[in-house]
Amino acid sequence: MTATPVPRLPPILPGITGPADLRELPREQLAGLAEEIRGFLVDRVSRTGGHLGPNLGVVELTIALHRVFRSPVDRIVFDTGHQAYVHKILTGRQAGFDELRQAHGLSGYPSRAESDHDTAENSHASTALSYADGLARGFALRGQSHRRVVAVVGDGALTGGMCWEALNNLGADTAAPVIVVLNDNGRSYGPTGGGLAHHLTELRHAAGHRRGRPNLFHDLGLAYLGPVDGHDVPAVEQALRQAIRLNCPVVVHCVTRKGKGYGPAETDEADCLHAVGVVDPRTGRPAAPSPPTWTSVFAEEMVDIGRRRPDVVAVTAAMLRPTGLWGFSRAFPDRVFDVGIAEQHAVTSAAGLAMTGLHPVVAVYASFLNRAFDQLLMDVALHRLPVTFVLDRAGITGPDGPSHHGTWDLSLLAAVPGLRLAVPRDPTRLKDLLNIAIATEGGPTALRFPKASAGPDIPALHHVEGVDVLRTAPDARVLLIGLGPLAGACLEAADLLARRGIEATVVDPLWAAPINPHLSLLAAQHDLTVTVEDNIETGGFGTRFAHQSTSLPSRSRVRTVSLPHAFVPHGPRKALLAQAGLDAGSIVRTVLTCPESQGAAQRTAHGNGRSLRSVR
Amino acid sequence: MTATPVPRLPPILPGITGPADLRELPREQLAGLAEEIRGFLVDRVSRTGGHLGPNLGVVELTIALHRVFRSPVDRIVFDTGHQAYVHKILTGRQAGFDELRQAHGLSGYPSRAESDHDTAENSHASTALSYADGLARGFALRGQSHRRVVAVVGDGALTGGMCWEALNNLGADTAAPVIVVLNDNGRSYGPTGGGLAHHLTELRHAAGHRRGRPNLFHDLGLAYLGPVDGHDVPAVEQALRQAIRLNCPVVVHCVTRKGKGYGPAETDEADCLHAVGVVDPRTGRPAAPSPPTWTSVFAEEMVDIGRRRPDVVAVTAAMLRPTGLWGFSRAFPDRVFDVGIAEQHAVTSAAGLAMTGLHPVVAVYASFLNRAFDQLLMDVALHRLPVTFVLDRAGITGPDGPSHHGTWDLSLLAAVPGLRLAVPRDPTRLKDLLNIAIATEGGPTALRFPKASAGPDIPALHHVEGVDVLRTAPDARVLLIGLGPLAGACLEAADLLARRGIEATVVDPLWAAPINPHLSLLAAQHDLTVTVEDNIETGGFGTRFAHQSTSLPSRSRVRTVSLPHAFVPHGPRKALLAQAGLDAGSIVRTVLTCPESQGAAQRTAHGNGRSLRSVR
Repeated sequence: MTATPVPRLPPILPGITGPADLRELPREQLAGLAEEIRGFLVDRVSRTGGHLGPNLGVVELTIALHRVFRSPVDRIVFDTGHQAYVHKILTGRQAGFDELRQAHGLSGYPSRAESDHDTAENSHASTALSYADGLARGFALRGQSHRRVVAVVGDGALTGGMCWEALNNLGADTAAPVIVVLNDNGRSYGPTGGGLAHHLTELRHAAGHRRGRPNLFHDLGLAYLGPVDGHDVPAVEQALRQAIRLNCPVVVHCVTRKGKGYGPAETDEADCLHAVGVVDPRTGRPAAPSPPTWTSVFAEEMVDIGRRRPDVVAVTAAMLRPTGLWGFSRAFPDRVFDVGIAEQHAVTSAAGLAMTGLHPVVAVYASFLNRAFDQLLMDVALHRLPVTFVLDRAGITGPDGPSHHGTWDLSLLAAVPGLRLAVPRDPTRLKDLLNIAIATEGGPTALRFPKASAGPDIPALHHVEGVDVLRTAPDARVLLIGLGPLAGACLEAADLLARRGIEATVVDPLWAAPINPHLSLLAAQHDLTVTVEDNIETGGFGTRFAHQSTSLPSRSRVRTVSLPHAFVPHGPRKALLAQAGLDAGSIVRTVLTCPESQGAAQRTAHGNGRSLRSVR
Repeated sequence: MTATPVPRLPPILPGITGPADLRELPREQLAGLAEEIRGFLVDRVSRTGGHLGPNLGVVELTIALHRVFRSPVDRIVFDTGHQAYVHKILTGRQAGFDELRQAHGLSGYPSRAESDHDTAENSHASTALSYADGLARGFALRGQSHRRVVAVVGDGALTGGMCWEALNNLGADTAAPVIVVLNDNGRSYGPTGGGLAHHLTELRHAAGHRRGRPNLFHDLGLAYLGPVDGHDVPAVEQALRQAIRLNCPVVVHCVTRKGKGYGPAETDEADCLHAVGVVDPRTGRPAAPSPPTWTSVFAEEMVDIGRRRPDVVAVTAAMLRPTGLWGFSRAFPDRVFDVGIAEQHAVTSAAGLAMTGLHPVVAVYASFLNRAFDQLLMDVALHRLPVTFVLDRAGITGPDGPSHHGTWDLSLLAAVPGLRLAVPRDPTRLKDLLNIAIATEGGPTALRFPKASAGPDIPALHHVEGVDVLRTAPDARVLLIGLGPLAGACLEAADLLARRGIEATVVDPLWAAPINPHLSLLAAQHDLTVTVEDNIETGGFGTRFAHQSTSLPSRSRVRTVSLPHAFVPHGPRKALLAQAGLDAGSIVRTVLTCPESQGAAQRTAHGNGRSLRSVR
């Protein structure tokens, strides 16, 4: 249905207000419903942005699931949750798609707050089988064995170790049988790699008599049904009903096509339009070109580094393009390792690579590195191995919500002995710090940057003991420490403060960990220091800086501005930052509410402030 | 060789100063060497404590490995590293066993600082295949493909998800073939469970014609050799040489017996004397009975809770006995889930259990919970699920060294929104806080306690706003905040300070996160506050308390005593704590070096201190 016009008055879909309606629908209307759902998806997601390819691929599968199982008594867990749009459409949330992923609008993932039909907000991959195992065992213990538990898991998600841990348990859980629906589209973002993918390909192509051959799932104690055409509703329904009758742990292998039915997605080589912003529905492409992002700056510099440093290799957990490694992989195909959705293995195999004298760059979303904290700590840092971690999507990420915000790394990574953590404020600093990282021996380095356009360079006035001074004034009694991209907001705030007669020094420490000891000396030269960071408050830069400041004799006060100790919902990055006090106006208000700033204003007005320069 | 006397002058072993000697040894002497090594292990480990059962099981396997491969040019990675004692004996470190796991003595794990033959200090399970993958790919890239990479992995470790992630990659790494030696003894601590264990049992018992049948490893793209009797050196050597000739990713399935050749280990039902303290070598049992430990207090209370609360279930990652769940599992076998060495699955399946209305208690070593930080954050806390985490081995653990010290949880867990973290100081508080935890709805709770005897109860004088006041004085100008077991050291310190004319208030906040706001008020009533915790400094309780204190107008100073920002080596817990300043004498010195304490002493001497009680 490439670029066909969306039907203006869909005859079937508006009548589906919940799974009960769907179950009553005559079989001959199912194909029409599927077509309407695809039109609905393309129409809505092209306007709001969101996960397009994965949902186009599970239209029939989801219809079949809701016709066979009785949600919410039966529980359906999607892995990952970004393939739950069709599920949302079929469980009474069509209207919500007008504000998909907008502030206070429909979440891009399952949400228990939205609907009883949603089990878990699982945007991190490979969790569904574990949830399902717990649910099934819990129902059995509570005498509710009639409640079916279904986990819908992609072949990509299946490369994650959690799935192995869960399958190992599921195969032995004969008293609490889970139905695993394997949504095999051969891809996560790009094509799924590794031995498992090869095995699934074998299974997909197995002819009749070879189908009974024991396979990997049998080996782990699960029954296996399939392969089934995942776009054939009656066939999927039949397989699901057979799975119920088996009453044992079972895998139903459904073969689907990511992006199915929408030309621009089907033909998108990179990732079948996995996730899009606002796009032209006819082409699936952004209407306007986007400015350079932090990711694209990193991507370009990596190619340059690749030329200069033959010992630099790159590691990604199934996210070659989203993390900016695509160019590097084209230029140096032998030096990039896509390990699957497997952050733990990514980090420890990088440790192994480093032991051979290579310098691995592990490019990963900040939020996903939480999956490999132990490996970073024990396998890399304890061994003082030179590995560079590049954390994209650090800080507030935006419409993907609480599980995609990368707002813990400044707390977690700082606790890793021997690790240095850089926060570039602009493209030039990103390149500089990346080059410092790959030149580092004897321990890991991490860099973090957000999902945003990278903005123009912010040159330093001068450098003091490794700190970039971005603004200074003889009378400054207020010190603003802006971490990375927030240095810009601090400069804006300083401008606003100057208009009120309050002069501020603005510095960028470049490194969030360890904390440059010179910052405490600078703080001691001011009455008030405000730290500004795009990370959860607890254990972040500000917390650690405030702690460090207690060991210096000083009457200087420290205030910290950071994200609240909470899960931040989805919404536009700019609005969420402002809401947390992380924009220029809020920083000004923070300064003005401190009694120290009043003194600063007075002293400045009376010209009796000590000169910042004079005390250096 | 049950309790046979150890030969006084072993004729072969002293001549083995390295793998080269071993390779020259005539085959007919190998059985004798193996017997000597077993005698050596029992003799030495019974005197120092250490991992006994696992190493008795890999004597022949390790001999064969070092005869076939050329370490350190070839790399051997043991998973976990606690089965590397024989490797150490054969690589020139026999003398070191006199001081195994003692301060500055031989490590209980591989150690790159000790020997070029050691690849990684990997005491957390399931990492070896990932290291090996990186090593092999690195060697290939650097033109060193002649260097073989061997990973020795237990069947227990294989239940961990990292192994799946690695196998998925290894099976496709035809250009960098890794030899996986599967040390299958059917156990981790206890018997290995799940679908994988069943499959391995099938493979062990496969008769001739069924051996060619495709198995799980074939499905993932690896060749398979075996099963081989892991106690038959020539047979293992032959299989390893065949694996080399195959020149492709391959699993060599070796069947061994944990505790082999030592009666007390072979017959120990619980875990084949997996790890022992100082024991009588004739019996394998401790000479003297040990006082009640934190673990045993927890274990008893769990049984009691099980009787009162039928909705409480327990989850363990293959550590039923070490974490204190043995009694609960005997009393309520249907309500305990041993998921294998699979912390990630343990946490997320607990989330699933909680969704059905049960209250899961996940009992885990503090250091191992790092493996599941993301699952705790995203799958439990984001969903505000009532799960209780019981962290054994929190703080300095002792002879197991840097990878077993549980010294990050006060930093990491505090950063989880909605999680409450309790630190009991004595048995009564452990029981109380555990009961509070399981009565908590709407979010997770964690408790942490160390590997130590639990000591006597320390009653509170009174309670103020949820804080236990343990000592008070009208003139107290110093406040000591002792977290959990360190409250005792603070009381001792207060006694010592009183003798010098400095009175101190001592409190135990019971909860490390969130921080009780009343503590800041207490701090404001003193000139100096010292926090004392058994956790890394960065982001720990002290850091967060110091930060919180900056937001109160107060001239009170805060000093924090905690572990350094470093990996702490192995050694006795008491000595390591003292070294970090976490004993009474050190706390006194910390107080005395602060100028505020001098003022406190003076004011106390002149009787002009404000009364603590009067300002309450």
